[in-house]
Amino acid sequence: MEDFIFGTLSTDESRIAHLRLQRGGVTHAHQRSPHDPLPDQAIQIDLTVGPSYAYNQAWIYWTNDGSDPDGKNGIALNGYATSLEPIDSEWDTLLWGYLRRFRGEIPGQRAGTVVRYRVSAGNKDEETLADDGAYYAFYVDNDPPPAWAQDAIIYQIFADRFFSPSSDFPKIEAKPSLKSNGTLRGIIEKLDYIAELGTNCLWLTPIFPSPSYHGYDATSFFEINPRLGTKEDFKKLIEQAQARGMRILMDFVPNHWSNQHPSFIEATQNRNGQYFNWYTFEHWPDQYKCFFTSRGLPQINLRYAPARKHVLDAAKYWLEFGADGYRVDYCIGPTPDFYGDFRQATRTSKPDSWTFGEAVDPPDSQLTFEGGMDGALDFMLLEAMRKTYAFGRWNARQFGEFLDRHEAYFPATFTRPSFLDNHDMNRFLWVAGGDIRKLKLAALCQFTLAGAPVIYYGTEVGLSQHDDVMQHGRAIHEEARLPMIWGEAQDRELFNFYQDLISLRKKHSALRSGTRTTIFSDEKILVYRRSDGEESLVTVLNVSEQEVSFELELAESASAFATGPECKVQAAGGQKRIFLPPFGGIVLQ
Amino acid sequence: MEDFIFGTLSTDESRIAHLRLQRGGVTHAHQRSPHDPLPDQAIQIDLTVGPSYAYNQAWIYWTNDGSDPDGKNGIALNGYATSLEPIDSEWDTLLWGYLRRFRGEIPGQRAGTVVRYRVSAGNKDEETLADDGAYYAFYVDNDPPPAWAQDAIIYQIFADRFFSPSSDFPKIEAKPSLKSNGTLRGIIEKLDYIAELGTNCLWLTPIFPSPSYHGYDATSFFEINPRLGTKEDFKKLIEQAQARGMRILMDFVPNHWSNQHPSFIEATQNRNGQYFNWYTFEHWPDQYKCFFTSRGLPQINLRYAPARKHVLDAAKYWLEFGADGYRVDYCIGPTPDFYGDFRQATRTSKPDSWTFGEAVDPPDSQLTFEGGMDGALDFMLLEAMRKTYAFGRWNARQFGEFLDRHEAYFPATFTRPSFLDNHDMNRFLWVAGGDIRKLKLAALCQFTLAGAPVIYYGTEVGLSQHDDVMQHGRAIHEEARLPMIWGEAQDRELFNFYQDLISLRKKHSALRSGTRTTIFSDEKILVYRRSDGEESLVTVLNVSEQEVSFELELAESASAFATGPECKVQAAGGQKRIFLPPFGGIVLQ
Repeated sequence: MEDFIFGTLSTDESRIAHLRLQRGGVTHAHQRSPHDPLPDQAIQIDLTVGPSYAYNQAWIYWTNDGSDPDGKNGIALNGYATSLEPIDSEWDTLLWGYLRRFRGEIPGQRAGTVVRYRVSAGNKDEETLADDGAYYAFYVDNDPPPAWAQDAIIYQIFADRFFSPSSDFPKIEAKPSLKSNGTLRGIIEKLDYIAELGTNCLWLTPIFPSPSYHGYDATSFFEINPRLGTKEDFKKLIEQAQARGMRILMDFVPNHWSNQHPSFIEATQNRNGQYFNWYTFEHWPDQYKCFFTSRGLPQINLRYAPARKHVLDAAKYWLEFGADGYRVDYCIGPTPDFYGDFRQATRTSKPDSWTFGEAVDPPDSQLTFEGGMDGALDFMLLEAMRKTYAFGRWNARQFGEFLDRHEAYFPATFTRPSFLDNHDMNRFLWVAGGDIRKLKLAALCQFTLAGAPVIYYGTEVGLSQHDDVMQHGRAIHEEARLPMIWGEAQDRELFNFYQDLISLRKKHSALRSGTRTTIFSDEKILVYRRSDGEESLVTVLNVSEQEVSFELELAESASAFATGPECKVQAAGGQKRIFLPPFGGIVLQ
Repeated sequence: MEDFIFGTLSTDESRIAHLRLQRGGVTHAHQRSPHDPLPDQAIQIDLTVGPSYAYNQAWIYWTNDGSDPDGKNGIALNGYATSLEPIDSEWDTLLWGYLRRFRGEIPGQRAGTVVRYRVSAGNKDEETLADDGAYYAFYVDNDPPPAWAQDAIIYQIFADRFFSPSSDFPKIEAKPSLKSNGTLRGIIEKLDYIAELGTNCLWLTPIFPSPSYHGYDATSFFEINPRLGTKEDFKKLIEQAQARGMRILMDFVPNHWSNQHPSFIEATQNRNGQYFNWYTFEHWPDQYKCFFTSRGLPQINLRYAPARKHVLDAAKYWLEFGADGYRVDYCIGPTPDFYGDFRQATRTSKPDSWTFGEAVDPPDSQLTFEGGMDGALDFMLLEAMRKTYAFGRWNARQFGEFLDRHEAYFPATFTRPSFLDNHDMNRFLWVAGGDIRKLKLAALCQFTLAGAPVIYYGTEVGLSQHDDVMQHGRAIHEEARLPMIWGEAQDRELFNFYQDLISLRKKHSALRSGTRTTIFSDEKILVYRRSDGEESLVTVLNVSEQEVSFELELAESASAFATGPECKVQAAGGQKRIFLPPFGGIVLQ
């Protein structure tokens, strides 16, 4: 079975085409340093010009008052124009030609400023805007991720699928058989369950009004889906969660919404109306930019100031309402400059809010969101963990080597929530063939790495699927979104395992914020240490079907956690002998 | 017509395969800084390890006594072992994985040392030598290219095709009709002709004994082909050339020689004999490494010390005999460490010798010869000049932009002799459809750029071809190697043009060693300035079928050279009005 994760760059052809386009064009593509500038810190802007562009000049047009920069041939028509200078050239064997690299600087700005900019290159007769005319923006402030993000343990709730109290039941409209009847009051009723599990942060899939059960096609960004409840319910949920020490992250979809959204209906009926420019009509009223080819999901034109303001107002509204941050759906969709404003909006309405993106993209693309958000869901780690622990395609050493390189690639300030699965792919337990040992080992690994772990609802009690998500070449996502199981259906032993794992992470700061070093790996075994100033813990994972017994020189000696009672450690001075069953793991302190 | 120049990386498929192999493997590939270290200067060695290698350690094994380094897992078995440390990781979209980069240092060495090294990466169970086990070497000395290289104007003589005095004629064996009967005495007899032209350096295609007319398949590296003459003739040629201020470069082919070479015959007859290891037999006696698939050209095993010594002795022999340097044929063929020894051999036998390679390869490959030789024939410039001036596929601006990037890519100390054609491709005049204007403009450009210009024999008097080199998918190189024309057959007007061009270059140091700046370009016109501390000259090229007239702000005002009398300049203060006919060019001082 192929793992169904990666979208736009899933084939060799698409990857080569992407490289050709990016390296062959007039390309800025977020080559900005730093990505997230501090007040008064100058920002270096880089541009590459591909072999087929005979351009010897380049410019940045920029503003610091929120308006759109404009300019031509190095002359600003709004804002400022700054020259880039050629710094070197680079040979590209794929394109069989030289790239020219330009560099320039935007001077340091005051805290609170949104700098919006475009980059261009040309010669005296011609000028081409970088990246098809993309606008970029960054927000200037000293605003690292909130401290609580490092400590977060996230429980992802698919709102419709979680729980419906019997009192809510009559209110719910009929839905197809696969679907559930979850409500906000249902979540409130199960907060004690979640508190018992131990997670300290909820991520709710979209709860705005929507014609679908999943909510990724909102008809309003300012209301609650009546099927799920009311604003009062949501307020109560926030309060009740807070009372249990839990924060709430909302799912935010700035790229698109439903074609039933009133503004879209109005735009298709009146091309002179106020909403026409909220969309990008290629041919009015029936052809418009949308999410891939989904005509039911028109793309919001975030370059149009009123539409942008509307979306940003929504982002501010819910933070002020009481939410703690956002998981931003399909974050590669919006124009890049949106994130300068989004950062300003989220940081000013709630300075300690936490935002991270969903970019089903490789690391270089993930990193472009640095500064616009606090991080991104760690899709590369997801792929690596599934390859290793579920599919057995990578051995322990390959996974360890991946971890080393992956962690070296990202700055520590870029938060990367980790996950084993989500609502868009087969559940981990399903792809692991129902093998609970593999799930436990993967979870142990997940919880001993730096990224804030996300548990997809039900994983903690063995919820799996009836069938594969991919059926006859079509994705049937409902398979990965089965109703939450309760009572007898739950695997309580697994629940206890997750409870202990969460306690472990909560207890040890080194697991949340310590540095990680691989100290041993071979085909079966991976051993790494996490340590901060206070303490150090060693995780030992047996990624094989064989029982293993081996010695390691370790200062750590006591078992802080184990996947099962067969995992043992014997100490004889510094030398430790470790016994692990197949797919067993242990944490030593 | 496709221009027939590039070989091994001529298709997209081959380029992508090359990138996959290089970035996906354990790769050093000459990532050394500096390439050409000074005495006591430490040398940084880089290595990348592709996604599929789970390696967390890397080492350099090296010697400084000429012997082969040897080692395993960081322990030297001969010479020294030095650890490389992981420095960062790099995402690669083509390979869809991370590369890990390692870096280490070889300490500075005394002048005159050859450092030989290999690089490897591994983990505790496995070790892989970089680049399929390649040996590398560099020679430590403060030895920039000789000063005369900057002033060289090279005349390339295909020895068999140039001139045969009537007294030599009876001695020459019969050869196919296309072939000529050139001899060394013929060249001596024509030295006055060459002196009249004005070039100050001869490059002779191979003159060693060989069964072929072209000589790229020697049967001895220490004799002169009797068909061409004797050692006495060659000695006399050197003396007579020197008397006219000319130096002599020989064509040297270290990679392979003829299967008629006595050592090869012996090796195929006696697998226990002393010559068996001079070759790489895959299956003795009939399968062996050779030049591409040419079984007539067995590859010399330069990793075998006696074979290497033999080749190096030849390199020393002819420098001591009186030659001034080498054009090294197919320089990508020999093992990389050969060039450490080659450098030592050439620099110690003749400190001011000049050596440059023939690598029909892109710039990144050219640069790997830095330190081993003084430079490489500029194949990228060749391709660009033919594209622009002969084929009209690049306009003036595109060519100017190429020049900027190309020159920015190479260090100034890396000599890049320029040429419009050679014996392996269609002559320039042929691909220019016989249009002398295009040849003149290209030559003007060539002679006003930094690289030492090479004139392929006959180009100066309009020698062209009967037919295309590529016929029915086969290369008939003889077409580009027609006998030199003499007397009435010569285009004397073109000869005078070349004479003037050579005088121009000789007169103006700025054209040989000044910096170059593009000061104007559009689709038709390219203008650049060369200037050193002493003087500055501006070259103006009209790369179009149209007459042009335009104004430029220039300090330079007087015509120092023009492709024809229609080229004019009118001065009115700083503003100059320039008139150029189609494919006309002018140099202003």
